[in-house]
Amino acid sequence: MQIINRPSEVSLICSHAKGTIGLVPTMGALHEGHLSLVRKAREMCDFVIVSDFVNPHQFGEGEDYDKYPRVPDKDAALCEKEGADILFAPSAADMYPRGFSTWVEVKGLTDILEGEIRPIHFRGVTTVCLKLFNITRCGKAFFGQKDFQQVCVIRKMTKELNLPLDIVRCPIVRDPDGLAKSSRNAYMTFGERERALCISRAMFAARRAVENGCRAVEEIEKTALEEIMKSRPVAVDYVTVRDPETLMPAENAAGSVLLAAVRYENVRLIDNILLY
Amino acid sequence: MQIINRPSEVSLICSHAKGTIGLVPTMGALHEGHLSLVRKAREMCDFVIVSDFVNPHQFGEGEDYDKYPRVPDKDAALCEKEGADILFAPSAADMYPRGFSTWVEVKGLTDILEGEIRPIHFRGVTTVCLKLFNITRCGKAFFGQKDFQQVCVIRKMTKELNLPLDIVRCPIVRDPDGLAKSSRNAYMTFGERERALCISRAMFAARRAVENGCRAVEEIEKTALEEIMKSRPVAVDYVTVRDPETLMPAENAAGSVLLAAVRYENVRLIDNILLY
Repeated sequence: MQIINRPSEVSLICSHAKGTIGLVPTMGALHEGHLSLVRKAREMCDFVIVSDFVNPHQFGEGEDYDKYPRVPDKDAALCEKEGADILFAPSAADMYPRGFSTWVEVKGLTDILEGEIRPIHFRGVTTVCLKLFNITRCGKAFFGQKDFQQVCVIRKMTKELNLPLDIVRCPIVRDPDGLAKSSRNAYMTFGERERALCISRAMFAARRAVENGCRAVEEIEKTALEEIMKSRPVAVDYVTVRDPETLMPAENAAGSVLLAAVRYENVRLIDNILLY
Repeated sequence: MQIINRPSEVSLICSHAKGTIGLVPTMGALHEGHLSLVRKAREMCDFVIVSDFVNPHQFGEGEDYDKYPRVPDKDAALCEKEGADILFAPSAADMYPRGFSTWVEVKGLTDILEGEIRPIHFRGVTTVCLKLFNITRCGKAFFGQKDFQQVCVIRKMTKELNLPLDIVRCPIVRDPDGLAKSSRNAYMTFGERERALCISRAMFAARRAVENGCRAVEEIEKTALEEIMKSRPVAVDYVTVRDPETLMPAENAAGSVLLAAVRYENVRLIDNILLY
C-alpha cells in the first residue's frame, strides 16, 4: 500500500489504474464500520483508495474539529491489513489552496435533520466528496449507512451532476451491545455509553414493531422517543420516520427509515434503521 | 455526425471514445466565434462534441431566455460541416429533472462585473458546465474569450474541484468592422449596430495606448468610457481594467484586461481586450 499526500500524485496514479477504482472516503480514526467499507470496496473493485482527511469545512463553529481523533499510523496499518492500494492523506492546504471558493450544494435535502442543526456541514461534505471523486475518478464510492442523510445527499449530487459513479451504501456496524460504531464514541464517559444504548434499543424496537405489523408513523416515533428519553439526554435533536430517499416525513412506517440524533453531555450521537 | 438528445446516450458513447474528448459548450445560434472553437477542438482532440443547450438557469428574471435565438437545423449543418462527431442537444427536462437542487458556485469571482448585474447567471453556467464535463468526460473544453469572466470562473471551478480537464480560451472573433460576434447581435437595429462599434474602437484604442507605453489604469478607463459614451448608450454597466486571472482592479495596465458592458435600447453587449 502506498501512502500519498498530494492530490496530483493520486490523480496520476489513478489515471493509469486498470479496472474499477473504488474510493472509501473517511476522516480517519478508523473503526470496524470503516473497515467494512474497505472490505466491500476490495471485493467489488480492482483498485482501492481510502482517503483519510479531517475536512475542516464540514465542521461548524464550535464543533469538534480540533478534538476530532487523529491516529494516522493506526489508520495506515488497518488499511494496509485490509488490502487497500492507496491511503490518500492530503493536507488541508492541498485540498483548499489559498483563495478557494468553489462550493457544491444540494439544496433542500441539506436544510433538514442534520442540516438544520449543522448549517454548513453538508456543503463541506459534498464539496470534499466531489473533489475526491474527481481526483480519483472512482467508479464506486463506499459510504456507511450510519450517516444516512449523507448518503442520500451524495447520491442526489452524483445523479444530478451526472457523475459516472455508483454510491454504495453499506450497513451500520454495531458493537455487540448494539451501539453504532462511530469515531465520536470515544468522547463518551462509561456512564454516557451505558445510557446511549437506549438509542439502538429504540431502533431495534421500531423494526420489530414494523415487522409485527405496525404501520403508524406517529406510534413508532412516540415509542422510540420514550425509549430514548429514559437515558436522560441533554437534548433530542430529532426522532423521526422518513422516506428513505427524499427524507420527507413518511406516511407509512413500512419501507421507511427511522432516524435519531441525541445529545449527551460529551457527545452528539446519530443512529438510524430501515423499517421493512 | 450524430445528433443526440439523451445525456445517458452521450455518456455511453463518450465512455467508449478513444483519445482526447473535446467539448464545445454552446447555447446554439452558432456564429463564427463558436465555429472557431469547434475548429480548435477538431485540431486538438480526437473526438469532438458540441453541446447546444439554451440553459434556462443562467438567465435571470426578465432576461432574454424566451427570445434567445434557436436555430437547431442551421446549428446542426454548421457543426457537421466543421467535422464535429456529436451534436448534443438535450432538453431542459433531461438536464434538470424534477426536484433538481444541486448547484455549484464559485463565490467571490462571480459577485463582481457580470455577476453583479446578473446575480444567478454564473451559478447556472458553472452547474451546467460541470454537468456537461461529467456527461462527456472531456479532456479539453473550449470557450470564447468574449465571455472573459466566464472563462475565469470555469477555470477556477475546474482547478478547485480537481477536474482533470484543460479549459482552452480561444480569441474573440469580430466582424470586419470590429464588432465582437455574439448571438445577441441579432437583437440590434441597424442604428444600434453602428453606435455599438464604438465599443470595439475603445478596446483597440486601449491596446494601442498600452502598446505605446501607457500604464495608467485610470487613463485607459477614462479614454475607453469617453469613446463608448459617444454612442449614447442607455447605460454603461462597467468599463474597467482588471487582473486577467483574479479580475480584481489592476494596478498597471500592462498585462491586464479591459472589460466593458454596455446597454443600448434593444441589447446589452460585452467586450474585452487583453492589454500587453
